[in-house]
Amino acid sequence: MGHQTNKQIILKNYVNGFPTESDMEVRNGAIQLKLPEGSNGVLVKNLYLSCDPYMRNRMSNIKGSYIDSFTPGSTITGFGVSKVIESGRADLNKDDLVWGLTGWEEYSLITAPETLIKIQHTHDVPLSYYTGILGLPGLTAYVGFYDICSPKKGDTVFVSAASGAVGQLVGQFAKSFGCYVVGSAGSDEKVNLLKNKFGFDDGFNYKEEHDLDAAFKRYFPNGIDIYFDHVGGKMLDAVLANMRLNGRIAICGMISQYNLEKSEGVHNLMELVAKRIQMKGFLILDSYHLYPKYLETILPLIREGKIVYVEDIDEGLENAPKALIGLFHGRNVGKQVVVVARK
Amino acid sequence: MGHQTNKQIILKNYVNGFPTESDMEVRNGAIQLKLPEGSNGVLVKNLYLSCDPYMRNRMSNIKGSYIDSFTPGSTITGFGVSKVIESGRADLNKDDLVWGLTGWEEYSLITAPETLIKIQHTHDVPLSYYTGILGLPGLTAYVGFYDICSPKKGDTVFVSAASGAVGQLVGQFAKSFGCYVVGSAGSDEKVNLLKNKFGFDDGFNYKEEHDLDAAFKRYFPNGIDIYFDHVGGKMLDAVLANMRLNGRIAICGMISQYNLEKSEGVHNLMELVAKRIQMKGFLILDSYHLYPKYLETILPLIREGKIVYVEDIDEGLENAPKALIGLFHGRNVGKQVVVVARK
Repeated sequence: MGHQTNKQIILKNYVNGFPTESDMEVRNGAIQLKLPEGSNGVLVKNLYLSCDPYMRNRMSNIKGSYIDSFTPGSTITGFGVSKVIESGRADLNKDDLVWGLTGWEEYSLITAPETLIKIQHTHDVPLSYYTGILGLPGLTAYVGFYDICSPKKGDTVFVSAASGAVGQLVGQFAKSFGCYVVGSAGSDEKVNLLKNKFGFDDGFNYKEEHDLDAAFKRYFPNGIDIYFDHVGGKMLDAVLANMRLNGRIAICGMISQYNLEKSEGVHNLMELVAKRIQMKGFLILDSYHLYPKYLETILPLIREGKIVYVEDIDEGLENAPKALIGLFHGRNVGKQVVVVARK
Repeated sequence: MGHQTNKQIILKNYVNGFPTESDMEVRNGAIQLKLPEGSNGVLVKNLYLSCDPYMRNRMSNIKGSYIDSFTPGSTITGFGVSKVIESGRADLNKDDLVWGLTGWEEYSLITAPETLIKIQHTHDVPLSYYTGILGLPGLTAYVGFYDICSPKKGDTVFVSAASGAVGQLVGQFAKSFGCYVVGSAGSDEKVNLLKNKFGFDDGFNYKEEHDLDAAFKRYFPNGIDIYFDHVGGKMLDAVLANMRLNGRIAICGMISQYNLEKSEGVHNLMELVAKRIQMKGFLILDSYHLYPKYLETILPLIREGKIVYVEDIDEGLENAPKALIGLFHGRNVGKQVVVVARK
């Protein structure tokens, strides 16, 4: 029972603007692979780490927000899939698989293990999916679409960042519900995925649309009933001008704004009155309790091939900073995952 | 049965920026005080005219919005109280009093009289109230507060333009519901009204607050649950940063933006996500059907003195342009009404 070396990803300092790899460093730490006496913590080996846009907000020095900042000099934390080495929690045993909040490191001592969810793994579904479609991004798409957007059959739906972890699922849920769905993404490759893999009715590369308003008038000549927003800013502004009466906007995130010193102004809010639009922000942390029901619903759909899911997997903890930063440049195609170890 | 002279207020041209009196003119027209043969229209003598902020939008050359532009060279239209001279509508008779959409002129031939509502007038309530507390502004406050804001006892409520036609009622409804209510207005005289006449818990003169964020932190140290927005722009932005978890924002109008070439940008929309806020625009035209129930509720409250109402009454049709323009400079204290004739 000695010390085990433990590679870790450290946030060096609070970040302004776009994060770069040099804002983080790989440190060779050490960990004792034994729970402290009487601990109710859980000692885990980390397998898959989730890269999520909200993590950018934790890299800033924020106070009183919905989430705490990371601590400069300390290991970054995030959602991941891990294997239990030793457990102080009664219902978890050695070699159990779990997903939840863990550290960006090889091994973590999780001292607040109540959020860890035990995985009943079956090998017909990739274990990494618990960072995405079988984890929070999946639940986000499900709750966001069905509860926040109040869809009706035949509604026209627009999804931004549509090939991402959440967007690809929102599009598929909306299609299977009987909606007309168009997505935007940042490359032709991604737009191709939307149309040919995820079954969107249409899609466009927003980087090639110099007039977003004209794009929306082309793709939605009769307007948009539902907007599932991941990006905020100019895109949201252009959508507002193209919404239909009694439209609904679910705001899941605003990735286009996270790296700006001051967020862009949105000008078309008077459309909320003219069109009687409801705009609602949500955080999936409020809906954890719906996870078991969601899992029961989604697993058969995956097994039957009725829902597909695309991941962008980078190998090796040391590549995690690059993978995370890639999100903000749209380098990932599908859900960005980092493999620390496969078992 | 000859021609009767008919003084009219004409919009000369579409307006950019703040409207001025010279954008309108008083014209001495003429009208035949006899319904055309077979007409189902209603010929009325106009008594009280309502000046409302939304009318500014009709002075611009807008297309495809929730409401049509006025026609340059033609009489301005708006809500008012009128007396029937001759009726082609079966349920209206000579000398009946009605409220609804009419012209800014002494006499109007209303060719689409289906929106006219018959007034069962009793002399203990001023007839002019049917332009306000007993008309659309009253219904707006009622539906906006109870339906759109989903209030709970103990909620903290902020109302902008709080001494106006709608705001003064929202504040009183919220107080009687058991909320803590603060209003903003543009003069100390108006703030005095809020606190001493309408029973708001507190109020402030926004023109004297150079740091709106600091003002909200002072008046709402624990944040705002409900914002009833009449003004938009910077005020909305500052409110967003001071909302509480699960807050609700009802957007009734954005008077601060109507005279701007390009509306101000709102920057704090990410607060919608962080605080899970619902923001909803509404137009009272969707809720006409609730008017009979509202009237039944509000009339006894007025008679028992449980709800008070302040009007700012200008005499004479020729003063209507000045009265309307005054709204956009905050010159009115209470609901702005113009008297064309008292009977």
